[in-house]
Amino acid sequence: MAQEYEVIIIGGGPAGLSAGIFVARQKVACLLISKDLGGQLNLIPKLENYPGTIMSSGPLLAKTLENQFLMFGGEMIYDTVERVDEIEGGLKVKTSRSEYITKAIVAAPGKVPNNLGVENEQTFVNKGVHYCTKCDAPFYQGRTTAVVGVGGYLLESGILLSRMASKIYLIYKGGALGGDKDMIAAIEKKENIELVPQSSIKALSGVNNLQSITLVDNSGKEKSILVDGLFIEMGSKINLDFIKHLVKINSKNEIETTVEGKTTHPAIFAAGDATSIPYKQIVAACSGGATAGLSAFNYVEKLKGKPGIRADWKKTIGDTVFHY
Amino acid sequence: MAQEYEVIIIGGGPAGLSAGIFVARQKVACLLISKDLGGQLNLIPKLENYPGTIMSSGPLLAKTLENQFLMFGGEMIYDTVERVDEIEGGLKVKTSRSEYITKAIVAAPGKVPNNLGVENEQTFVNKGVHYCTKCDAPFYQGRTTAVVGVGGYLLESGILLSRMASKIYLIYKGGALGGDKDMIAAIEKKENIELVPQSSIKALSGVNNLQSITLVDNSGKEKSILVDGLFIEMGSKINLDFIKHLVKINSKNEIETTVEGKTTHPAIFAAGDATSIPYKQIVAACSGGATAGLSAFNYVEKLKGKPGIRADWKKTIGDTVFHY
Repeated sequence: MAQEYEVIIIGGGPAGLSAGIFVARQKVACLLISKDLGGQLNLIPKLENYPGTIMSSGPLLAKTLENQFLMFGGEMIYDTVERVDEIEGGLKVKTSRSEYITKAIVAAPGKVPNNLGVENEQTFVNKGVHYCTKCDAPFYQGRTTAVVGVGGYLLESGILLSRMASKIYLIYKGGALGGDKDMIAAIEKKENIELVPQSSIKALSGVNNLQSITLVDNSGKEKSILVDGLFIEMGSKINLDFIKHLVKINSKNEIETTVEGKTTHPAIFAAGDATSIPYKQIVAACSGGATAGLSAFNYVEKLKGKPGIRADWKKTIGDTVFHY
Repeated sequence: MAQEYEVIIIGGGPAGLSAGIFVARQKVACLLISKDLGGQLNLIPKLENYPGTIMSSGPLLAKTLENQFLMFGGEMIYDTVERVDEIEGGLKVKTSRSEYITKAIVAAPGKVPNNLGVENEQTFVNKGVHYCTKCDAPFYQGRTTAVVGVGGYLLESGILLSRMASKIYLIYKGGALGGDKDMIAAIEKKENIELVPQSSIKALSGVNNLQSITLVDNSGKEKSILVDGLFIEMGSKINLDFIKHLVKINSKNEIETTVEGKTTHPAIFAAGDATSIPYKQIVAACSGGATAGLSAFNYVEKLKGKPGIRADWKKTIGDTVFHY
């Protein structure tokens, strides 16, 4: 028998966690499903532009948001949502490991890294293949690595790895590095970085762990190199496969949302980087989450014939708590 | 000669301060003008639903936002903006004490308390007349006070004053108190609160400080009572007199804003409770401020023929700072 919730939030980044804070605070049965805690917050080692926090980091903010959500009584589970479907009286959420039933959903899936697209890539994920240099470079101190990628992502990854790994192959399709001039100059000065222009990766191989990569250059010539780790820095994408049959998606592959966090489906609300907001900022994700969460709460209340709320003020004066 | 800035922010609440953080961080000459620090944040003794802060208060959040703004090089001045006008090549901001010239404005004036509307009310402001019970009740420990107001504001003020003042006259127009039943029951139990129904305040008098108030009841009968302090809790309003000739205002007296924080005037951006956002939450004000700030920055950059930014990522890897 599938477990039932009033609101299910999909995504554990700032948008999903913030939605959770605002829903759980209303004493609504609320489950947050995410494959990780923090999402893209984990890419931010030093955070200085989130209003209200000084000297923080992305993971630290994620932990604080999680604490707030859990303190208000929200539940969280680590799982991957595969598909959402309409059922009588609500929605069914199918995950990798289970199924849940809910009256409303806040979709905050954010962005996920682009794959390289090589056949056995999935086999080596976290066994030599990584999509977040900032997160995983420290595992490669003194070891041999390669990074393949595009634009600023590639440059940034190369600089970061050069401080950790003993050797870095920097692999790119073009003839020259593109992007910020200062960053390119910094790359060119690093003695442990070997530039591999006009090349792409054709195959990965290894027993259990990645051991070598096969490069192919623009003339079709192949070459294998031994590496301990490969970092794939091809930017990120929005994955809406689990929900695209239910809501309108715009030309940038973002969920179309109103200023109230509503989608074209009455029971599905959305927030964060996977929605049509102009600036993909953490505080915008948090605000979108709060808004979508309150809209989802109001939707559920309306189903019960209750009025809902327009704001979310709770005041404590002395020993008395006031709700507005 | 009026001082010149690239961006001027009007309002020192969460929206204005957050706009300041995002503008000043871009190394743009930026002035924030406000009559106070924090705006309505000062009304929140205990803050639990701002994502990313645990165990905080409104004034503490305001102080943190101010620190972030000043750390990024923003300037702040305590003054009241009286009028904004178009001039050649920009806008002129006239304040009570000075004049400034700017290329773009972020208007984040928020809400201000409603006046009682009695003739000499302004004479006694902070000399016995107060608009924020939470802020100023502590000055009236053991003294005689009155509070006049509406709905939940009146009840809340009465309960708060009952813990501080020796005597509270609770003045209201109707025959019975309206609002939350628990709060009304709490009021009725307090021995130092005297209910004054079917009444309003006709006049204030005193030498230098407020000394007495003249009440008039529904039959027209007048009565004077001696008080040390009068708290006016009539809710709040949005004051857009300084800018209403330049931007479109909706039927709720809010500045019409797009999701990018744009108004109908190309050089004026807006955020916070004075704009047409659905949920008046602190995090929504901060996000609106960030968005309006980035849009103002992009507008100013475009005037210089530069491309502007769509996001605001600045990454530090080792000794290198990257701007995106």
